[in-house]
Amino acid sequence: MIIQGNSIINKIDRNDDIIYVLLAGSTEISKIPGISAAGENSELTFLTPVLDSEIIYSGKCISYDVIPMTENGIPTPSIITRAANLVSGVDILIVDAGFYESPKIPYLHTKLGPANDPRKQEALTKYDVAVETGRYIGRMLDKKYKYIVLAESVPGGTTTAYMVLRSLGYDYMTSSSMKSGPDQLKRKVADEAFQRYKPVNNAMDSMIQYGDYMMALATGISGAVRNSTIMYAGGTQMACVYLLDKIINKSHEKRYIFTTGYIINDRGDLLSDIAGGNIIYAKTNFSGIQGLDYYEQGYVKEGTGFGAAFGIAYVINKNENLIYDEIKKVYNSFL
Amino acid sequence: MIIQGNSIINKIDRNDDIIYVLLAGSTEISKIPGISAAGENSELTFLTPVLDSEIIYSGKCISYDVIPMTENGIPTPSIITRAANLVSGVDILIVDAGFYESPKIPYLHTKLGPANDPRKQEALTKYDVAVETGRYIGRMLDKKYKYIVLAESVPGGTTTAYMVLRSLGYDYMTSSSMKSGPDQLKRKVADEAFQRYKPVNNAMDSMIQYGDYMMALATGISGAVRNSTIMYAGGTQMACVYLLDKIINKSHEKRYIFTTGYIINDRGDLLSDIAGGNIIYAKTNFSGIQGLDYYEQGYVKEGTGFGAAFGIAYVINKNENLIYDEIKKVYNSFL
Repeated sequence: MIIQGNSIINKIDRNDDIIYVLLAGSTEISKIPGISAAGENSELTFLTPVLDSEIIYSGKCISYDVIPMTENGIPTPSIITRAANLVSGVDILIVDAGFYESPKIPYLHTKLGPANDPRKQEALTKYDVAVETGRYIGRMLDKKYKYIVLAESVPGGTTTAYMVLRSLGYDYMTSSSMKSGPDQLKRKVADEAFQRYKPVNNAMDSMIQYGDYMMALATGISGAVRNSTIMYAGGTQMACVYLLDKIINKSHEKRYIFTTGYIINDRGDLLSDIAGGNIIYAKTNFSGIQGLDYYEQGYVKEGTGFGAAFGIAYVINKNENLIYDEIKKVYNSFL
Repeated sequence: MIIQGNSIINKIDRNDDIIYVLLAGSTEISKIPGISAAGENSELTFLTPVLDSEIIYSGKCISYDVIPMTENGIPTPSIITRAANLVSGVDILIVDAGFYESPKIPYLHTKLGPANDPRKQEALTKYDVAVETGRYIGRMLDKKYKYIVLAESVPGGTTTAYMVLRSLGYDYMTSSSMKSGPDQLKRKVADEAFQRYKPVNNAMDSMIQYGDYMMALATGISGAVRNSTIMYAGGTQMACVYLLDKIINKSHEKRYIFTTGYIINDRGDLLSDIAGGNIIYAKTNFSGIQGLDYYEQGYVKEGTGFGAAFGIAYVINKNENLIYDEIKKVYNSFL
């Protein structure tokens, strides 16, 4: 079994019914050295959402002639998502959740800009605009697609998620793009942010003070979606969004977390504490695929919703090898 | 009867089925003094698509604190479109068809940039990207909406349309945003462009040499739309797109021009020569509405698809006064 968790997945059979939405953007948090491995160095983490967007839309890095890998040679999960989406043939939409600069592909422009460093100031000074924009997107997608897959590319986002979760009383460590997550550093950053602004156990307030624009857009989208099912494609960041959505938008039917087996192994407790049985995950195996074999060692556990993208490609085509072959093809095109 | 032309209009009854898409952008052509009245002066015509987009999405000019009128005090038709769309409650999508600068609202970013002056060089150096982007948009909207309304905000666009039409053997004068169109100037501009590059009666070539990105996006969208009905919302510019679409995309079912009574009076011959019976128009009357009464004198005949927007609002609500009242409200909010 490649897909496990919840039987809702068996209802998916037509790619027409599905849109993959990438909420891509930056937070100043990713520039703290050691926080994120999503980029060759901490300054370059700001470009990762831009490059992920270009890879997922076009299969190429257009803005910069780089190989999209960490300094250790671990490729970005957007390669997997790109390949899986090609196989499943779903529609895709890239949304500006705080880009540092514009990717050179068609995307929904918002000009929110990177979220601020919550140790120094309120993270989301444009929170209201972000939620309103999310609602606009939600109204547009609702009913048009039975399944709206919301994925993220936000380096530093597991740290913002950690802060928001902890401020709301969920003192779990979040996952990381590293093999051994920088848990102590995350705690230190949170302590400093909480010193600036003491948590008040209010979801909206937490998001504004410590969060990122991906969260604000996602809760806005969910707030406007009345008929479609939303699948939060990701790990602990999306568990945080699931929780914010549950608190802020109250009614919480037709909302699922769709993740990877790596996340279930790493932070399954956090996910089930927040989402109960509304979790689906894809068990992938990248052993023997150059570069991606690092994933088997726990270096990357989620990102750009690759678990959901893989799972959906499998549910639609029932052919695992087809997906792995396409992943190798996309991966090799970068070498 | 407010709506006339083709009975297809009677099939429309649900706002869920309709999306209004604004293709907004610039061409260097609008900077030729005397070509366009869409802006307080010829330099400012570059801002009109930006402000029209902001008005249609938000009801406000955000980027600049201006009253969106020509130097004679004639308001932009986007005020009418905004009001009509509010009444009908259709989804709206703003698409960057060559913005000079980014509007401060959510929109589909393409970064095509303004089209070049065809007297000096090829107009659409990014033609392929524009068509590919159009196809992407078309695939996303197809089937999701029964009716896709494609409108434009392209100052100078009646001149590019004139050149493309004439190069394809349709030697009709196009409409204008002025009471008496600058027909002689348009002919002179075309003559100069044709001197640089002699027309070869090839639709794609004409668009690349003399056109604007609105045309390229629209034909790309139509090329990918197999199920939905497209309504080209506009006057002679949209008649030109209808023609390009017919030639380039061959099959031409479910394609209509949706315009105003002003255009039918002004250039009805051109429209029916190109689209035969596939024309719908809304007969509006702005007498007694301050500013908009200029429209009754023939100053503005189309723009931002206000004929279609008005017509659809009427078909859905069957209440003309409701629309006029909302138009007055939006108009007054700018004073």
